[in-house]
Amino acid sequence: MAKKVVTMGELLLRLTTPGHSRFAQAKSFDAIYGGAEANIAVFLANMGMESYFLTKLPDNEIGDSALNFVRNYGVKTDYIARGGDRIGIYFLEKGTSVRPSRVVYDRKYSAICDIDVNDIDFEEVFKDAEWFHLSGITPALGEKCILLVEKAVEYAKKKGVHISVDLNYRAKLWSYDKFESVISRFINDIDVCFGWLSSEEEGGKHEIADFAKQGVDLEKFKKTFSNMKKRFNIKYMVTTLRENYSADNNALSALIYNGEELYQSNKYDFTIQDRVGTGDAFAAGLIYKLANGVDYKDALEFGVASGVFKHTIEGDFNICTEDEIMALVKGNTSGSVQR
Amino acid sequence: MAKKVVTMGELLLRLTTPGHSRFAQAKSFDAIYGGAEANIAVFLANMGMESYFLTKLPDNEIGDSALNFVRNYGVKTDYIARGGDRIGIYFLEKGTSVRPSRVVYDRKYSAICDIDVNDIDFEEVFKDAEWFHLSGITPALGEKCILLVEKAVEYAKKKGVHISVDLNYRAKLWSYDKFESVISRFINDIDVCFGWLSSEEEGGKHEIADFAKQGVDLEKFKKTFSNMKKRFNIKYMVTTLRENYSADNNALSALIYNGEELYQSNKYDFTIQDRVGTGDAFAAGLIYKLANGVDYKDALEFGVASGVFKHTIEGDFNICTEDEIMALVKGNTSGSVQR
Amino acid sequence: MAKKVVTMGELLLRLTTPGHSRFAQAKSFDAIYGGAEANIAVFLANMGMESYFLTKLPDNEIGDSALNFVRNYGVKTDYIARGGDRIGIYFLEKGTSVRPSRVVYDRKYSAICDIDVNDIDFEEVFKDAEWFHLSGITPALGEKCILLVEKAVEYAKKKGVHISVDLNYRAKLWSYDKFESVISRFINDIDVCFGWLSSEEEGGKHEIADFAKQGVDLEKFKKTFSNMKKRFNIKYMVTTLRENYSADNNALSALIYNGEELYQSNKYDFTIQDRVGTGDAFAAGLIYKLANGVDYKDALEFGVASGVFKHTIEGDFNICTEDEIMALVKGNTSGSVQR
Amino acid sequence: MAKKVVTMGELLLRLTTPGHSRFAQAKSFDAIYGGAEANIAVFLANMGMESYFLTKLPDNEIGDSALNFVRNYGVKTDYIARGGDRIGIYFLEKGTSVRPSRVVYDRKYSAICDIDVNDIDFEEVFKDAEWFHLSGITPALGEKCILLVEKAVEYAKKKGVHISVDLNYRAKLWSYDKFESVISRFINDIDVCFGWLSSEEEGGKHEIADFAKQGVDLEKFKKTFSNMKKRFNIKYMVTTLRENYSADNNALSALIYNGEELYQSNKYDFTIQDRVGTGDAFAAGLIYKLANGVDYKDALEFGVASGVFKHTIEGDFNICTEDEIMALVKGNTSGSVQR
Amino acid sequence: MAKKVVTMGELLLRLTTPGHSRFAQAKSFDAIYGGAEANIAVFLANMGMESYFLTKLPDNEIGDSALNFVRNYGVKTDYIARGGDRIGIYFLEKGTSVRPSRVVYDRKYSAICDIDVNDIDFEEVFKDAEWFHLSGITPALGEKCILLVEKAVEYAKKKGVHISVDLNYRAKLWSYDKFESVISRFINDIDVCFGWLSSEEEGGKHEIADFAKQGVDLEKFKKTFSNMKKRFNIKYMVTTLRENYSADNNALSALIYNGEELYQSNKYDFTIQDRVGTGDAFAAGLIYKLANGVDYKDALEFGVASGVFKHTIEGDFNICTEDEIMALVKGNTSGSVQR
Amino acid sequence: MAKKVVTMGELLLRLTTPGHSRFAQAKSFDAIYGGAEANIAVFLANMGMESYFLTKLPDNEIGDSALNFVRNYGVKTDYIARGGDRIGIYFLEKGTSVRPSRVVYDRKYSAICDIDVNDIDFEEVFKDAEWFHLSGITPALGEKCILLVEKAVEYAKKKGVHISVDLNYRAKLWSYDKFESVISRFINDIDVCFGWLSSEEEGGKHEIADFAKQGVDLEKFKKTFSNMKKRFNIKYMVTTLRENYSADNNALSALIYNGEELYQSNKYDFTIQDRVGTGDAFAAGLIYKLANGVDYKDALEFGVASGVFKHTIEGDFNICTEDEIMALVKGNTSGSVQR
Repeated sequence: MAKKVVTMGELLLRLTTPGHSRFAQAKSFDAIYGGAEANIAVFLANMGMESYFLTKLPDNEIGDSALNFVRNYGVKTDYIARGGDRIGIYFLEKGTSVRPSRVVYDRKYSAICDIDVNDIDFEEVFKDAEWFHLSGITPALGEKCILLVEKAVEYAKKKGVHISVDLNYRAKLWSYDKFESVISRFINDIDVCFGWLSSEEEGGKHEIADFAKQGVDLEKFKKTFSNMKKRFNIKYMVTTLRENYSADNNALSALIYNGEELYQSNKYDFTIQDRVGTGDAFAAGLIYKLANGVDYKDALEFGVASGVFKHTIEGDFNICTEDEIMALVKGNTSGSVQR
Repeated sequence: MAKKVVTMGELLLRLTTPGHSRFAQAKSFDAIYGGAEANIAVFLANMGMESYFLTKLPDNEIGDSALNFVRNYGVKTDYIARGGDRIGIYFLEKGTSVRPSRVVYDRKYSAICDIDVNDIDFEEVFKDAEWFHLSGITPALGEKCILLVEKAVEYAKKKGVHISVDLNYRAKLWSYDKFESVISRFINDIDVCFGWLSSEEEGGKHEIADFAKQGVDLEKFKKTFSNMKKRFNIKYMVTTLRENYSADNNALSALIYNGEELYQSNKYDFTIQDRVGTGDAFAAGLIYKLANGVDYKDALEFGVASGVFKHTIEGDFNICTEDEIMALVKGNTSGSVQR
Repeated sequence: MAKKVVTMGELLLRLTTPGHSRFAQAKSFDAIYGGAEANIAVFLANMGMESYFLTKLPDNEIGDSALNFVRNYGVKTDYIARGGDRIGIYFLEKGTSVRPSRVVYDRKYSAICDIDVNDIDFEEVFKDAEWFHLSGITPALGEKCILLVEKAVEYAKKKGVHISVDLNYRAKLWSYDKFESVISRFINDIDVCFGWLSSEEEGGKHEIADFAKQGVDLEKFKKTFSNMKKRFNIKYMVTTLRENYSADNNALSALIYNGEELYQSNKYDFTIQDRVGTGDAFAAGLIYKLANGVDYKDALEFGVASGVFKHTIEGDFNICTEDEIMALVKGNTSGSVQR
Repeated sequence: MAKKVVTMGELLLRLTTPGHSRFAQAKSFDAIYGGAEANIAVFLANMGMESYFLTKLPDNEIGDSALNFVRNYGVKTDYIARGGDRIGIYFLEKGTSVRPSRVVYDRKYSAICDIDVNDIDFEEVFKDAEWFHLSGITPALGEKCILLVEKAVEYAKKKGVHISVDLNYRAKLWSYDKFESVISRFINDIDVCFGWLSSEEEGGKHEIADFAKQGVDLEKFKKTFSNMKKRFNIKYMVTTLRENYSADNNALSALIYNGEELYQSNKYDFTIQDRVGTGDAFAAGLIYKLANGVDYKDALEFGVASGVFKHTIEGDFNICTEDEIMALVKGNTSGSVQR
Repeated sequence: MAKKVVTMGELLLRLTTPGHSRFAQAKSFDAIYGGAEANIAVFLANMGMESYFLTKLPDNEIGDSALNFVRNYGVKTDYIARGGDRIGIYFLEKGTSVRPSRVVYDRKYSAICDIDVNDIDFEEVFKDAEWFHLSGITPALGEKCILLVEKAVEYAKKKGVHISVDLNYRAKLWSYDKFESVISRFINDIDVCFGWLSSEEEGGKHEIADFAKQGVDLEKFKKTFSNMKKRFNIKYMVTTLRENYSADNNALSALIYNGEELYQSNKYDFTIQDRVGTGDAFAAGLIYKLANGVDYKDALEFGVASGVFKHTIEGDFNICTEDEIMALVKGNTSGSVQR
Repeated sequence: MAKKVVTMGELLLRLTTPGHSRFAQAKSFDAIYGGAEANIAVFLANMGMESYFLTKLPDNEIGDSALNFVRNYGVKTDYIARGGDRIGIYFLEKGTSVRPSRVVYDRKYSAICDIDVNDIDFEEVFKDAEWFHLSGITPALGEKCILLVEKAVEYAKKKGVHISVDLNYRAKLWSYDKFESVISRFINDIDVCFGWLSSEEEGGKHEIADFAKQGVDLEKFKKTFSNMKKRFNIKYMVTTLRENYSADNNALSALIYNGEELYQSNKYDFTIQDRVGTGDAFAAGLIYKLANGVDYKDALEFGVASGVFKHTIEGDFNICTEDEIMALVKGNTSGSVQR
């Protein structure tokens, strides 16, 4: 019997220029739908879980298309609220070599900003659920979203559902101070926290230390993670470590801290088809394994392999099978034809 | 020496599903830029006029692309203001046969709503200008846009520039009462008014009588036009008459009233490649000829032929030459290959 | 509460040449999935019913894609069996004007031919179901499919589910005699029969009289329908009447017979975007209304309008809303832009 | 045993804007290869004849692609000469409704203009050949092409090969006087002449009378054809009659004169996918049947049906089977699906 | 005078997802035709040989398209048999980085499985032929194909035609034991054998030792090749050696053994556009040179360069000129623009 | 106030096969317009300069499209002459890995070859201009172009405009001797010379020493540059140094010599999206900075970064912002997403 998992967040329309063409050259946009939490919902459905996604979408044909898009991959859309003005949009131009990818956000005033806590029946949603995942982006979308997250976390805890939070600080959406004060209210007693909150003396703002630029100081991570863990009573502190060689070529590994040991995963070098959603793929892989009772180190390895695999796939979603991820975990990264 | 003409309005991003596919089927959108007034600006540039377009665009790559798009066709973009949150968007699904085209608007909060009357140097803009065209859509976009229109009309009149206004009432943007009270402030002493304001006893709201559904009552038009002309001291009252056989097949003619005679143009039957912007193409054709001193009946015929021709062209703009329109005016509608 | 409806049949991969290009010109194929019964399942899901589709698909990525394709439109795929060699394929070249569309079938040896009656838990499937629809194509696919249909009909009747059958004789799949002898076993005591079985003295084989080529002899229809109704105790006998002006232009109406009156629907003229699935759209529209207790004449009108609307939509599925179909029923076939 | 047929002429690169988009909108061109005589060669290969095409192509990759393009459809390319500067190009924008298609020619200085009469071994080419077809375009391409035509006709006659000539006067390529004086040297004692030479008193220049604009004066045609027949000893005088309703809708029939009777074919109404090459398709159909000993009236009907069918096919070539053309001849123009 | 070469095998329809998209994302498939032996036939035609390809294709439009596809590149299709149910299909998803390419086969019940030995006139086929190439895939397709291969080899030997066989064991098609017992009957006294048969003590099954995974043990190869050579009296034993760095990046070299010396070619590192058909390109390059009397070491170098070059070309075929391959052989692998 | 800059040269139609497909595979061509000097004009307009481009284009729709294409990016097209037979064309096939890109030129007889020195009003053109750039390609196009360059340089000098010349020797267009004798007449007293003229004893023809193949001998460059500088009184001698690893991977740096110091820029490694126009992007970057008074070393660094950046952009033009280039100059080549 497949376990039930719930994710909540915004679902955006992503409009990507064809190939690597610049915005100024585009005569059409590839249109898909995605977003940090939806990406995770899709992966978990791919893995065979009963995966519910919560959001609010405008009650028009674009909203319908967004809903269809996640339903296509097996995500349960029964609890998605409808209404509001518009869907959030982001325009993406995919870089290559020395040219970075560029994103133009047009996500203000979107339907989820207008969500009412009663739009979703959390009692029903969390019935028999195993896991609930959310991110720090949602409360950044406005007061109604903060209320939504508050209520969701309250009900999830009441029902004994495991919780994971990807802090995902976005400087364009709110100030770090606001972020820290809000997010602190939601991350007590959770199972997994992706990223951390940093005081100034711990090395500055979260986003600055996010990825290891020139070598990783594991001791510093251990200390930061240890502080977070104690402060909020979090079971696992987690982060990815990324090296950017170019827009086409990166390396990825990850760290997990259980209060005793700081475990570092294998590191992979790879080329990039689509960079978006790779952090979500990592988180999804880890959650999938933890929710199914797998040892945290093995879960981390599966998460990293999942994140690496996502780089090869166009779009926001990590469309794959468990076997494909396990092949990476087992060391088969040669890309030989499967026939 | 080419005459200078000025148009002002919103420039939107139009996202169209490929071919006749439904929103639910679209995996990409064709991306162009357009809008009632920009469509007219482009046609006038095509005809060789020195055509300036006034608007406000966001200061990001999507705004740049919109600006490039009209510049490509020779429109002067020197006075376009930059800033604001976002570009207005509309999604278009092109119908066929018994299935109508559908539009999903996402134009709220767009850059032009945020325009300041000082963003544009009207003194400079209207220097040596021959004609100024605007529509009733712009003041519907908010208080700042009303101020903008007010100032523009004031300066245009001060400089002795001819003025045309396409009333273009849009029920989705504002109430008819608001529309009437605002629009009444701008249409005194102008040269051309497309559409009319209707009191209840004159047959109801503007949009209801807009197009002739089952035969045209010319006497009624004459009376309505006569009332409008006197009330606002307008030189020419104008409207198109359209018959919708199906989404692919329409007929079009037009009426002009100079205070004495109600002249009806030739009527054309045609199939439709793209319905959007055909009313603008009509207006642009008429303005072009009037601004160059052509007799109003000949100008109307040119306008109708221009409107008809636009139906054969993908996108918002009527990309064509004067010769091509004149061929229609002269009766060559057989579509024989030109080689 | 949405009513539950069940359809059963084959889901094929349809490979269509782009636009109207010939097979010999195609360098790619548009890939969708469809089939008579799946088309109906999708329409019923569109209309808001709880729509289950039963089939067997190969357990590979192409089978997954087929399943996703119907799930995307809200069809419930929980009972779809997996296994077998391959998915059935048909290649389609869309005609135009005097050139007919052409189909190359490659559907032999497909997964459903290999289905075991125990692959599907009919007890579960028909629990609380309102309606069951199947077609005469399925038993044509081989002995295992005949057993499948036999069991399905048995369980549906046991559970008091309404049943409709589209006879859909296909000369390429089996002989008319075999068709008649097999189909006769399934159509007793059903609610709706699309098409009829004809003895020689009644005007020849079913397929010959299927559509009215040169004027419809209503008396003949009435007699044939009356015979069928009595022989099998069918509640409603139904057929469409089609006139083929060209590959782009047809007319459609329909007949329903309730044992007393032969009612003929409105007739529509229209142009064609995609001819495939239009008969299914008709059937689906009728079933939807009958299953929801609507009068049979109104249901027929809705069915015909649904069939007409489908001609404007690319692919096998009739992607639309109830409002869109009702607009046709109410006489709005002018295709004016909805904005 | 398939009969051998030879055609000679220029093979051009055709660059067409996508769909019905204007030159100013095109960001890509569909690339095919074609030309009056090559179109005929391909049709005859389609019909199962041993069809040889003679031309000269530049010795670069574009020339290779042109050669491949006709070889793909079974045309024998063994005698195609290679060399010269460039391939002739024409840019095509396909019109619709009241907008005509437009052609921009860029065919000057092409490889065939530079052909040497010894580039082709006519002794070998015409060995066992049944038919030779050429057009009046080739001698218009320059002195070397006139010499080429001269030699080809000389050898064909020497070998007893049947000859057909499509006069195809192109005002952009040469003057009518030059055309008349040159073409007169090649059309003595041939089997079929498409089009005619007109003295002033016979109704003006060829191109003016080419197609019947407002009703056909059969007596006039009979007289003109009779004069031509006597003057040059031509077996059959032939022409098509076309009515242009719009760029999407035409009617076509044809006339043949054998010295006794002026026979007019059936007339077809149809919509248009691609107008180019339809006259060639007509000629090819007629030639195919005459070369295989069919009665000239039946051959004319086959030719017209072939010309009509071509309008439904994208590109220059009439890709079809004999059965498809015969279906039209037999009156099946309803475009019903073939499945 | 070009030498005549004959290849025989299956021609499949290859349906590839666009770019690197996954099966689950594909809304269209790029459609080409290919197969191990056809790939070789096309290369040999490219090189200017008179290249005949033998196969059986269904007598429908898809079969026609397959035939056209190889004819386009100059392959002689005169002896291709027509008939049977269907064309074999394979679906391809091209991997990238750590994600392997995936193939879904749908090749059962294809036309060639149904071939009759008398469908092809081998007496005629091998008249004046220089070389005959076949692979171990064909006899895996069923008993009729074994008879076909048997007869073909018999006639080829009778006519003194050189023979090459690519063993190409495919575990999905048959067991290794069956493979070994059948293939042993055809490879006596041939000129070139690609791959080898391995007893257990020689390192296990063929496919396991096929490519060098972690360093090549040349002594082992020499011994295996020596055994094969003696057992079957084969002139040259050949294999490629491939290193898979990732789905985008491989290295390739090759070995040839003439009974005395084991010669290893240059090794190339390269990125990959399309992995399919690269082994065939290698074989074709070697055969081309051997058939034209070139020294076996030079032939091997040409073969490897040909195989390497193929990796840069989309599709199954190695579309290139001899000069392009020779440029690699001479060491020019810098990819500088040729202008 | 933006500075005025003038460039002059040919504008060609570039027809590129899709992706990396070979000419023989292309069924369409991507159509853009470009050319060495236009590429520079567009970059300078991108940078905010008032950038005028001089050329002659045919007076047809293809000429219009070319003009629109540069106008789209903000280039001033007021002085472009119209007329002549045709636009120059080049066909491009983009290589990958060991396969080089290939160009087929079809630029003979183009409009600019037919230019009259009086077609352009140089008095007006150079009024208040800061900089004039031209290349050695233009005088290679024929005698009329030599006269044009002569007059342009004369007027530029008379008006005190800075001049830069990219020697750009093209062996396919003229002999080196002709090149040297003509080019020597134009490069006296200019500001920047890209490339150099080499006597035999200085290392052979220009093109041979152009790029450093195996290590750069800086002393040799210094000597050659010193000779050139003295002979023609040139302010800065400049060249790029390129290393070709493969068609997808190059390295680039550059040298500048001011008479005292030979300064070498940073060297970048990168992958390649489009190789064409990268030398022009380098030149444009350098000119932009020099024309705005930046130190020559900083200007060179900006030029190299601009050239490197261009490799990531499809088409001829370097579509970018100053910030994007400066990010490279400052060392950010990691391609991290900008969001």
